Amino acid sequence: MEGVDHLALERSKTQFDVDQMKVVWAGSRHALDVSDRIGRLVASDPVFKKDNRAMLSRKDLFKDTLRKAAHVWKRINELKLTEEEASRLRFFIDQPSYMDLHWGMFIPVIKGSGTEEQQKKWLPIAYKMQIIGCYAQTELGHGSNVQGLETTATFDPKTDEFVINSPTLTSSKWWPGGLGKVSTHAVVFARLITDGQDHGVNGFIVQLRSLDDHLPLPGVTVGDIGMKFGSGAYNSMDNGVLRFDHVRIPRDQMLMRVSQVTREGKVVLSNVPRQLLYGTMVFVRQTIVADASSALSRAVCIATRYSAVRRQFGSNDSGVETQVIDYKTQQSRLFPLLASAYAFRFVGEWLKWLYTDVTQKLQANDFSTLPEAHACTAGLKSLTTSATADAIEECRKLCGGHGYLSSSGLPELFAVYIPACTYEGDNIVLLLQVARFLMKTVSQLPSGKKPVGTTSYMGRAEQLLQSRSNVQKAEDWLKPSVILEAFEARAMRMSVACAKDLSKFANPEEGFAELSPNLVDAAVAHCQLIVVSKFIEKLQQDIPGKGVKEQLQILCNVYALFLVHKHLGDFLSTGSITAKQASLANDQLRSLYSQVRPNAIALVDAFNYTDHYLSSILGRYDGNVYAKLYEEAWKDPLNDTVVPEGYREYIQPLLKQQLRNARL
Amino acid sequence: MEGVDHLALERSKTQFDVDQMKVVWAGSRHALDVSDRIGRLVASDPVFKKDNRAMLSRKDLFKDTLRKAAHVWKRINELKLTEEEASRLRFFIDQPSYMDLHWGMFIPVIKGSGTEEQQKKWLPIAYKMQIIGCYAQTELGHGSNVQGLETTATFDPKTDEFVINSPTLTSSKWWPGGLGKVSTHAVVFARLITDGQDHGVNGFIVQLRSLDDHLPLPGVTVGDIGMKFGSGAYNSMDNGVLRFDHVRIPRDQMLMRVSQVTREGKVVLSNVPRQLLYGTMVFVRQTIVADASSALSRAVCIATRYSAVRRQFGSNDSGVETQVIDYKTQQSRLFPLLASAYAFRFVGEWLKWLYTDVTQKLQANDFSTLPEAHACTAGLKSLTTSATADAIEECRKLCGGHGYLSSSGLPELFAVYIPACTYEGDNIVLLLQVARFLMKTVSQLPSGKKPVGTTSYMGRAEQLLQSRSNVQKAEDWLKPSVILEAFEARAMRMSVACAKDLSKFANPEEGFAELSPNLVDAAVAHCQLIVVSKFIEKLQQDIPGKGVKEQLQILCNVYALFLVHKHLGDFLSTGSITAKQASLANDQLRSLYSQVRPNAIALVDAFNYTDHYLSSILGRYDGNVYAKLYEEAWKDPLNDTVVPEGYREYIQPLLKQQLRNARL
Ligand SMILES: Cc1cc2nc3c(=O)[nH]c(=O)nc-3n(C[C@H](O)[C@H](O)[C@H](O)COP(=O)(O)OP(=O)(O)OC[C@H]3O[C@@H](n4cnc5c(N)ncnc54)[C@H](O)[C@@H]3O)c2cc1C
Ligand SMILES: Cc1cc2nc3c(=O)[nH]c(=O)nc-3n(C[C@H](O)[C@H](O)[C@H](O)COP(=O)(O)OP(=O)(O)OC[C@H]3O[C@@H](n4cnc5c(N)ncnc54)[C@H](O)[C@@H]3O)c2cc1C
Ligand SMILES: [Ca+2]
Repeated sequence: MEGVDHLALERSKTQFDVDQMKVVWAGSRHALDVSDRIGRLVASDPVFKKDNRAMLSRKDLFKDTLRKAAHVWKRINELKLTEEEASRLRFFIDQPSYMDLHWGMFIPVIKGSGTEEQQKKWLPIAYKMQIIGCYAQTELGHGSNVQGLETTATFDPKTDEFVINSPTLTSSKWWPGGLGKVSTHAVVFARLITDGQDHGVNGFIVQLRSLDDHLPLPGVTVGDIGMKFGSGAYNSMDNGVLRFDHVRIPRDQMLMRVSQVTREGKVVLSNVPRQLLYGTMVFVRQTIVADASSALSRAVCIATRYSAVRRQFGSNDSGVETQVIDYKTQQSRLFPLLASAYAFRFVGEWLKWLYTDVTQKLQANDFSTLPEAHACTAGLKSLTTSATADAIEECRKLCGGHGYLSSSGLPELFAVYIPACTYEGDNIVLLLQVARFLMKTVSQLPSGKKPVGTTSYMGRAEQLLQSRSNVQKAEDWLKPSVILEAFEARAMRMSVACAKDLSKFANPEEGFAELSPNLVDAAVAHCQLIVVSKFIEKLQQDIPGKGVKEQLQILCNVYALFLVHKHLGDFLSTGSITAKQASLANDQLRSLYSQVRPNAIALVDAFNYTDHYLSSILGRYDGNVYAKLYEEAWKDPLNDTVVPEGYREYIQPLLKQQLRNARL
Repeated sequence: MEGVDHLALERSKTQFDVDQMKVVWAGSRHALDVSDRIGRLVASDPVFKKDNRAMLSRKDLFKDTLRKAAHVWKRINELKLTEEEASRLRFFIDQPSYMDLHWGMFIPVIKGSGTEEQQKKWLPIAYKMQIIGCYAQTELGHGSNVQGLETTATFDPKTDEFVINSPTLTSSKWWPGGLGKVSTHAVVFARLITDGQDHGVNGFIVQLRSLDDHLPLPGVTVGDIGMKFGSGAYNSMDNGVLRFDHVRIPRDQMLMRVSQVTREGKVVLSNVPRQLLYGTMVFVRQTIVADASSALSRAVCIATRYSAVRRQFGSNDSGVETQVIDYKTQQSRLFPLLASAYAFRFVGEWLKWLYTDVTQKLQANDFSTLPEAHACTAGLKSLTTSATADAIEECRKLCGGHGYLSSSGLPELFAVYIPACTYEGDNIVLLLQVARFLMKTVSQLPSGKKPVGTTSYMGRAEQLLQSRSNVQKAEDWLKPSVILEAFEARAMRMSVACAKDLSKFANPEEGFAELSPNLVDAAVAHCQLIVVSKFIEKLQQDIPGKGVKEQLQILCNVYALFLVHKHLGDFLSTGSITAKQASLANDQLRSLYSQVRPNAIALVDAFNYTDHYLSSILGRYDGNVYAKLYEEAWKDPLNDTVVPEGYREYIQPLLKQQLRNARL
């Protein structure tokens, strides 16, 4: 059966130009070409094999990761890859490693918070990987509340040095990726103390290990924090623990772009505005949203292909059972996730633009849109990562029993993905920040302050508080204006309702605390509106290719109407739509599912993932699931022998009744 | 700090008699005593240690499981444990093994489907574990649709034997627990063929391995199907693959309680009614619901204790940060899960009664309540396992970053629990069965047929279709009658709406397929009503102990009002309550959270779990989280050496720049 495409019949039903859809998904023809080429490169290189990852011991997995990371670096250099190509290469390796933090956090934070001098000193050696760095902020006792960190950096004017110290157990750095076993350096966040005064948390570049023999420097205790969720997954990463016993570093290793400490130990602000630091945050969160669409699309690709292979019940005339993808319940669980993958892809693309826009404005000393951009990225990070985590698990369930096998690829994808809900800001803490921004925006409406960017709809508050949806038949729900209006009305009304409830409290902070669950709901409504509206905006662009735009329109409507169904309580309780209109939305949704159905396989083919990247037997491109599952099973170490180890000690005595006296 | 109770202050705030609550949770004073005694026994026995499970290789984990299983059997015999005690012992070991299937499926199915003669022959040796059996139904290509199984059992009248055969790859048995490496026997489900005619699926007792040397018998190919979700978790189980090449078994090894094959190869029905087989199903599902409350309460116990230890932000006067359990968002995510644990416990208790009731009625040849009991157990299995799976992951998220560590106990709990959503019936397939039953019930209403048991509210259809909730202030939502009415109205109206929509289809099966997502929603509404009403019924009992009933009342209301919030779309779109009333429910819910808050720790203490059973550093009884996390980290194999294996090959060359030509 090798070489047979079990999904050929499915693919023959496609109603659009898959190659053009691949371009849309990748972002451009060029991006697709790069992605395709690098994806194949990785897939064909035996060093990058990953199909036995779940079976490796922690030590072997870690060594395998070190080997892959070194090989990545080797290939990047040998092939003289561009930055874009190198980044795709790291992506397709699909194994978390110290590289992610070195390139993704250590370098960006020096770029963002270091002075020009500091950048000149540290970046070149970091770029060449003559040092390897990580980002050491979180402590055993302190995470979300960065201002509560306990590590101290006390300026010693006698020697012109900072003394880095861990005064308590809870001040131990805890979690930084790459810290445990690999990093030679870290940006350490610590309370700056000069002259007995606490100046709050700042970043310091600290060398941790000798560049000669990799041993920790005097005063440094460092190690790995132990196993994490799942097999394989994030256990390839050496998340670390770190304690300092009065470690000294030169004064010029505090990151001084914004605050500086003088030779005398005075803290002075530079002329660079503090807000600049937000730029880095917008950048990092934008990559997280892009990663969400990658992880989600991967899970959806697996579940969609397998749903077309898997058959249960209801044999048709030919005596073959029904493909489970033909069940409406399966469609109603799967297709909204497929639509979400596209939705998150496009909102991620837009965030990339936003980052450029913010950067340009910052350079022009225009900070006006920063709070909005900051709230928007925080909210989208939260929304997309939470939805993706849930979706991966739903995709696993959609595969029935076989989804529970490691070889389905879904367990590891889930385990490796979920911390995205926690790192770079706990998702609930982030939504509370969004809510705070929304409440501020609402409170400033009467003063005539015009809300900007993603909150500009709030400028039409009066209209949105009174509007009635004029949906009268199911097809009305296909109109972008109708959808937007419903989502805007819902978000606006939820925010305004919260603001009203808040105003009843004498102490606004107490009110905020008491009403925080409602505020989180309002923030979610706002963020969903952003995703829906960016999808709609995308569709206003010119999108070439037979049937491509039509498919995207269908997916956009699926995404929006699925949210209407899921959050119906919001839409109805705010009076944004009526029960009758909700029922029409539901009818329309069912009919949209039927339109997705014949194109489902092609819509996941458009992600252009190699079987290597998917690493899922259920998601194989050729659909040859059963033969490969069967083959794979025999590779388990338990099958090395027919009679298991332990038989003589623990099974035979039972069977031979050397254990007596059972009362049962 | 050893010996200090970091949660003592929390415990001092308790407003009820924890010991009495323990009795309520356990079901009786006697059950508590047994549970407590056996729990401690397991915790203190070094063979049952499980804190390094996530680090074991598959082979070592499996051997560890064999060792534990043999030790369990030894202790059961040495201590002459009663059946109740033995079952608690197996529960507290907390490691899936072939024992679960031997005792939980192999023996019950012989009891339920074997003739008296067969029971006499097989049960005694099974009870003594002179044979070990499993339940082999699912095949590689066939799961939910049992009628589609491909394995054949062809009667050969010449030899008076059945020939068991696997005609295709997809007919390979796949998934049975205990099959891969341990079981000597299996109940194999296969198509009965006599005289060229297919008589559908029946069960057959088949010996798989020699009792002398444990080698597979001729014609039997058997092995393990490979790694499953997570580290540790269900990988201790040898879920297996099994193929038959014309294996012969005597005719009397077909389970013949209901259908029999005569010496001549005729298929005849016995005088035992087919429905008897449902009894076993009700029994198995009842244990699954009980397991759901155990898994859920365990996760909630961990998250609640850690939420009282963990502090972030908002320092109070003393300069200490706020306990995260004091945040309303944390409460609104956590307390409904705490309430759900109690709710599932009580509905599980009721199911135990239902099973007895059904059994008695069956014995009296009264099958009238069977369809209702069957639908009800199917629905409750689906509802409680889905909610529990989601809740465990939510509890993990509630623990922030540290929840992602294996040592939090939550990753393994999730991984080991989730297949409960799939085995013993895929949860969506089960809800569709419930929906089918509801539609039948509704369609019979006009004929005057009185709905029984959990559907008896449907007898008041007319009233429920017209009633209006008379909630006028938040406190009205505390009344059981008000809650019941809202839930009944919602469930009734959703079912009736589905029935109406169905009636528009010429072909009812087509209608059912097309509307299946709505039907699933209606089934969920019905099942939630059952859980709520059984909680309310429980509170009508006499419950001794200071404050115990008050706490349970609060939890019952939390559970119900949380569901109102979560499924608000249902309640509003059916007009069961108004938007204003929904908002009052929300206000009431927030105030209930404040009432739970001081009792939260005591409410999880009432589960009476040992630290061994919880196996979570975050959930430790004494709250000594940080010191123990720190200690635990150093045990990871990666910390065996300060410089990691692989340094010389893969890190040093990078740092020393033996790799050149970077273009970056
Ligand atoms: C895989 C992984 C990799 C990581 N990598 C790094 C790294 O490289 N460098 C680094 O420095 N750190 C890293 N971290 C740490 C990570 O950034 C923190 O875990 C994260 O910021 C969450 O903080 P926390 O763990 O303190 O959660 P907590 O804040 O303790 O969260 C616990 C609970 O409290 C709630 N809560 C907290 N504050 C509030 C509030 N004000 N209002 C309402 N509810 C609240 C949360 O919602 C949550 O439910 C990593 C973590 C993980 C899991
Ligand atoms: C850990 C574990 C232990 C197990 N132990 C045993 C054991 O001991 N013995 C044994 O015999 N088996 C065992 N099983 C197998 C288990 O019983 C099956 O996996 C289960 O019945 C689900 O069937 P499936 O895998 O075929 O799922 P499928 O039916 O293939 O499900 C795939 C998808 O199709 C959907 N679907 C299927 N039918 C319909 C329909 N009619 N309408 C709408 N949607 C539908 C499902 O909802 C799901 O989303 C075990 C499985 C696991 C994971
Ligand atoms: Ca492992």
